[in-house]
Amino acid sequence: MNTILPSWADTPARQRVIDFVTMVTVEGGSSFIPTGERIAAFDNDGTLWSEQPYYFQLAFALDRVRALAVDHPEWSTTQPYQAVLENDLQALAAGGMKGLVELIGATHAGMTTDEFAAIVTDWIASARHPTTGRPYTRMVFQPMLELLDYLRDHGFKTYIVSGGGVEFMRAFAQDSYGIPPEQVIGSSGVTQFEMRDTGPVLIKLPQINFIDDNVGKPVGINSVIGRRPVIAFGNSDGDLQMLQWTAAGSGPRLMGLIHHTDAEREWAYDQDSYLGRLDKALTEARASGWLIVDMKQDWLTVYPE
Amino acid sequence: MNTILPSWADTPARQRVIDFVTMVTVEGGSSFIPTGERIAAFDNDGTLWSEQPYYFQLAFALDRVRALAVDHPEWSTTQPYQAVLENDLQALAAGGMKGLVELIGATHAGMTTDEFAAIVTDWIASARHPTTGRPYTRMVFQPMLELLDYLRDHGFKTYIVSGGGVEFMRAFAQDSYGIPPEQVIGSSGVTQFEMRDTGPVLIKLPQINFIDDNVGKPVGINSVIGRRPVIAFGNSDGDLQMLQWTAAGSGPRLMGLIHHTDAEREWAYDQDSYLGRLDKALTEARASGWLIVDMKQDWLTVYPE
Repeated sequence: MNTILPSWADTPARQRVIDFVTMVTVEGGSSFIPTGERIAAFDNDGTLWSEQPYYFQLAFALDRVRALAVDHPEWSTTQPYQAVLENDLQALAAGGMKGLVELIGATHAGMTTDEFAAIVTDWIASARHPTTGRPYTRMVFQPMLELLDYLRDHGFKTYIVSGGGVEFMRAFAQDSYGIPPEQVIGSSGVTQFEMRDTGPVLIKLPQINFIDDNVGKPVGINSVIGRRPVIAFGNSDGDLQMLQWTAAGSGPRLMGLIHHTDAEREWAYDQDSYLGRLDKALTEARASGWLIVDMKQDWLTVYPE
Repeated sequence: MNTILPSWADTPARQRVIDFVTMVTVEGGSSFIPTGERIAAFDNDGTLWSEQPYYFQLAFALDRVRALAVDHPEWSTTQPYQAVLENDLQALAAGGMKGLVELIGATHAGMTTDEFAAIVTDWIASARHPTTGRPYTRMVFQPMLELLDYLRDHGFKTYIVSGGGVEFMRAFAQDSYGIPPEQVIGSSGVTQFEMRDTGPVLIKLPQINFIDDNVGKPVGINSVIGRRPVIAFGNSDGDLQMLQWTAAGSGPRLMGLIHHTDAEREWAYDQDSYLGRLDKALTEARASGWLIVDMKQDWLTVYPE
């Protein structure tokens, strides 16, 4: 077994990652990058953990609707709640983005930021994936955990840059990925400062503040980090602009795509998928010579033991 | 001369800072705070550098109006530009917030983020303060530079949390304060991703995205850092909510106010000032026992040599 990136097969993908990191971190080399500029950005859903059969944050929202339904008898006859309570995913899908935004608002707002963090922490400790039966935090990709560690060992600051909710991800990013809250960039709702008798709180409101996806990813990176990543990994068209933004920086850059090719150990999907669609980004990756990680070929293991 | 915080006088303020840092960083102590949680937040204008006779970023905007005026002949008869070009600060003040927002839009938008960073870098290297004749970056407070270093030496991550523009501050925060771009939180305009023939850029638009002042400071801290500071320093009522938010965290906390009491070496102003007003926050600091740094008494030096 290799001591570096042991869950990666001995294929060109693994070697390319190691060669790149070696090249930019060997002192005195012409491609040396100072520590402070070693920024690595990772999408979350489909890049650091699985995202099928639906985003894990949606599973959280559905579970929250079920938990809160006792206080909302009207939900049994109101969409999109009725669809959730009747487990009717087709009716839920029919509600489209509008229904989803309503669900997110109903389950991610109306409490303080501290209360929300506690709710997510409780949920993620007990919830199980519908088909694998695993805790969601055991559906992170072992090879990517090793890659995160490897980069940090070489002075990289590792960031999550995801369309997922920033406060949702922060509740487990430290434990699951070793990524602290201040290195998680995501979508967010509006929060409002309120002085209560017991002290100040931040209230989560149902209004959307920022969508960290597609063109939003470079915007989010610029807003929070203020400099370009040297390394970026994604898995879908929602990551294309982040990869383009990273590639356009001066000096050496590593852009990577996780290609879900393994229907046996995980899922296989790309250009025709309703979720995590990988089409334009795959075309551009091939044209531009970005690293394409073939999950089936390049990974010895998918999930942690 | 003291080796720790040498520009601080031997007064209780200095001792209180040292006692606090020692208390929370001595391994095994009951008040020990792990490295990752050692977050220190600093306001910028009036806390890390001077802010009189007007915010230095406003001086930048005024200089930019003068520089851009050749391409805008209509500005000589249009407010608020006419006021700037005629050096008529009273007329400028009469335009109020609306005029200021227009000036910021005209001078901080319409270019890429990279172009704006280059403009600020050029300006700050050559501009001089109207009364001291110093470069603005030599009007940072020497005692605060020492405090930032001292905290970093003790494992603290130092952040700027300022009402100033985030992209403006990032252009000099690393060189002036040793604070990297990703640890600068500030006000911002909307940016927009655009794919050009030469590659992707982010365009700065004139619309305001976020105001990082007053109630905005805890919101900005939560949005970017995702956890509460252990230490926060400010100098005006615009910092009150950040200090309250910091104080309300569990465990030991240090809240500090820089009180501008030194008309000879810097400026003296507080509750009646039109700028950097310190009134409610001073009252609360006294009531709650927060550290109040008396610039005249507690600092041996104000600016770097």
